[in-house]
Amino acid sequence: MKNFCGIHPTSLIGDGVSLGENVVIGARSILYDNVVIGDNCKIGADVILGEPNAGIYQDADAYKNPPLVIGKSSIVRSGSILYAGSTFGERLETGHRVTIREGTSAGVNLRVGTLSDIQGNCHIGNYVRFHSNVHIGQHSRVDDYVWIFPYVVLTNDPHPPSETMRGVVVERFAVVATMSVILPGVVVGEDSLVGAGSIVTRNVGKEDVVAGNPAKRVCSVRDIKSKENGSSVYPWRYSFDRGMPWEGRGYDHWASE
Amino acid sequence: MKNFCGIHPTSLIGDGVSLGENVVIGARSILYDNVVIGDNCKIGADVILGEPNAGIYQDADAYKNPPLVIGKSSIVRSGSILYAGSTFGERLETGHRVTIREGTSAGVNLRVGTLSDIQGNCHIGNYVRFHSNVHIGQHSRVDDYVWIFPYVVLTNDPHPPSETMRGVVVERFAVVATMSVILPGVVVGEDSLVGAGSIVTRNVGKEDVVAGNPAKRVCSVRDIKSKENGSSVYPWRYSFDRGMPWEGRGYDHWASE
Amino acid sequence: MKNFCGIHPTSLIGDGVSLGENVVIGARSILYDNVVIGDNCKIGADVILGEPNAGIYQDADAYKNPPLVIGKSSIVRSGSILYAGSTFGERLETGHRVTIREGTSAGVNLRVGTLSDIQGNCHIGNYVRFHSNVHIGQHSRVDDYVWIFPYVVLTNDPHPPSETMRGVVVERFAVVATMSVILPGVVVGEDSLVGAGSIVTRNVGKEDVVAGNPAKRVCSVRDIKSKENGSSVYPWRYSFDRGMPWEGRGYDHWASE
Repeated sequence: MKNFCGIHPTSLIGDGVSLGENVVIGARSILYDNVVIGDNCKIGADVILGEPNAGIYQDADAYKNPPLVIGKSSIVRSGSILYAGSTFGERLETGHRVTIREGTSAGVNLRVGTLSDIQGNCHIGNYVRFHSNVHIGQHSRVDDYVWIFPYVVLTNDPHPPSETMRGVVVERFAVVATMSVILPGVVVGEDSLVGAGSIVTRNVGKEDVVAGNPAKRVCSVRDIKSKENGSSVYPWRYSFDRGMPWEGRGYDHWASE
Repeated sequence: MKNFCGIHPTSLIGDGVSLGENVVIGARSILYDNVVIGDNCKIGADVILGEPNAGIYQDADAYKNPPLVIGKSSIVRSGSILYAGSTFGERLETGHRVTIREGTSAGVNLRVGTLSDIQGNCHIGNYVRFHSNVHIGQHSRVDDYVWIFPYVVLTNDPHPPSETMRGVVVERFAVVATMSVILPGVVVGEDSLVGAGSIVTRNVGKEDVVAGNPAKRVCSVRDIKSKENGSSVYPWRYSFDRGMPWEGRGYDHWASE
Repeated sequence: MKNFCGIHPTSLIGDGVSLGENVVIGARSILYDNVVIGDNCKIGADVILGEPNAGIYQDADAYKNPPLVIGKSSIVRSGSILYAGSTFGERLETGHRVTIREGTSAGVNLRVGTLSDIQGNCHIGNYVRFHSNVHIGQHSRVDDYVWIFPYVVLTNDPHPPSETMRGVVVERFAVVATMSVILPGVVVGEDSLVGAGSIVTRNVGKEDVVAGNPAKRVCSVRDIKSKENGSSVYPWRYSFDRGMPWEGRGYDHWASE
């Protein structure tokens, strides 16, 4: 079955849709009005792009779908739903059945794992990695080179239910491990590491390692040595480069250019 | 693309389906036999309503699909699957890819967030709010005005795996925050607050705040003051009214009518 | 609507697909090239079987889809995605919207609950039970008769992000309860029980019960008595048999045959 060429005849394409060169659209995907897709993007089967915002349920006749803009060379895997009213830089890559709501603004090279749920009205930097089943609450800010692992939730309501929204900030190069919850308004500092299963109620300092429920400071990331070979692991930009702009060159060399 | 008018021609409609006035059915949705939908409901794309129960795998010829009843003015977003054999009051609203199995009985104004998984054989009251990715085990009872936040699980098996099922009870106005687990048979009392990441092994008293792993009583909800302005926050029905029947009128005023 | 007979006309079937006798394929399912399905399998609607591996994004023309093999009498419920390059024994049964990636090798009678996410390159034994929303990291090994409950994650990266992958091992008859995280390289011993919400950082001994964050040994599984009748519950193979090969006969009787 030649699925990866052109626009599958079972797909539905709305008005005002703009497709770049060499775009592939899989079987039965829906592109609602005003979706803009860059060159060389590959959209899987059963994808919905430009899902209408809630306003359509109020007055379908008056509703006008805002643009959804996806940068070139992106991959959106099957079953994902991206709402109208968001913008993604080049090389977005999603897993399956991802949901991303309106008002999301993301840089280049964002990866979003299967089942992740980005609630919208949030800012995401460049080269951010969300693994499977990550939940990003509204008003979150996730800076460049952040890694968030499965089943992590960034919350936003300090007194649920309330009308107050205090988003989480995750600063650049920070790592949040599996099944952690970041409480509303918390700042997770640059180069920090949040251990698996942490309930983070207070700000995490630069280069701090925290763990536990509630999370407490354990040590500095510089105290962590590889279980494999005893070498330093963090800040990780000196030990890991796959898919990063400094791949094969070293972070310092790349940063000094 | 005019998606929000009438029955999309790619949808599949079974026998004995009853649609009220002004019902919208999105592209490629499937309504199996004996689905009953009230007036003014909006069903998104790729929705499955009346998914057959497991009996169909035993004997497809003898199987008869029980009704699925959805009250008027409901919204079912794309990718959701609602089994045959459940009943929902008016103004049900779901996110995307929700799963609700048979034997679920829900009141009016239920909201169920994206990816939530209601396992069926459970009772859900009026004006209940399940945020994203909530898991409701069989034999749960969730009373009116309860809020359950992302990645919360209501369990039911005290000695897994066993044939014993002891459902959780969440009493009215209680709030269960993100990533908490309620152990089998636990009663979460009226107006209580379960903090994020709690593993709740014992009953939670009326108006109690609990937190931790295992969860312990922290204080009364009446001891919590707003971080914004120092005012009391709980019981929340006096500080929050969006979407509630007392919206714009005050709880006491509404309750006294 | 007669959905459970034959191949639905809206399904898409690739080249080199082999279907056994009495196979049912639901509406709008996609079978990519080289899928092999045994007799009497029932595939729901909106299922994708043989999802192409990532190589197709590198060079679609050169890409050749590896086989996906599903044993006879299996049930794959609607919305599930199974990648090319995996093998499942007889009587696989999935919930809805399950994702299983390439390199997964599973024995007979595997059950995988709704929304579970098996990341591939892993070995799964016979009669394994994954409940809803379980996440199995790459390089995991899950032995026969293991039960894993909702929102459990088996991790694999000891220093995220890194190139090191140390999979989890869950030995036979072990039980991992809801919302637990097993850290990389940990061995969960035979007949052990991991309590709900555990963050498991060290190996779990045979027949040990562990709980907490971080998880600590609580007692032996043999110390646990039923809350219903005071009888012993574990090892569970003596108190539970539904769906097991010793059903109705007793484990020892079956094992001695």
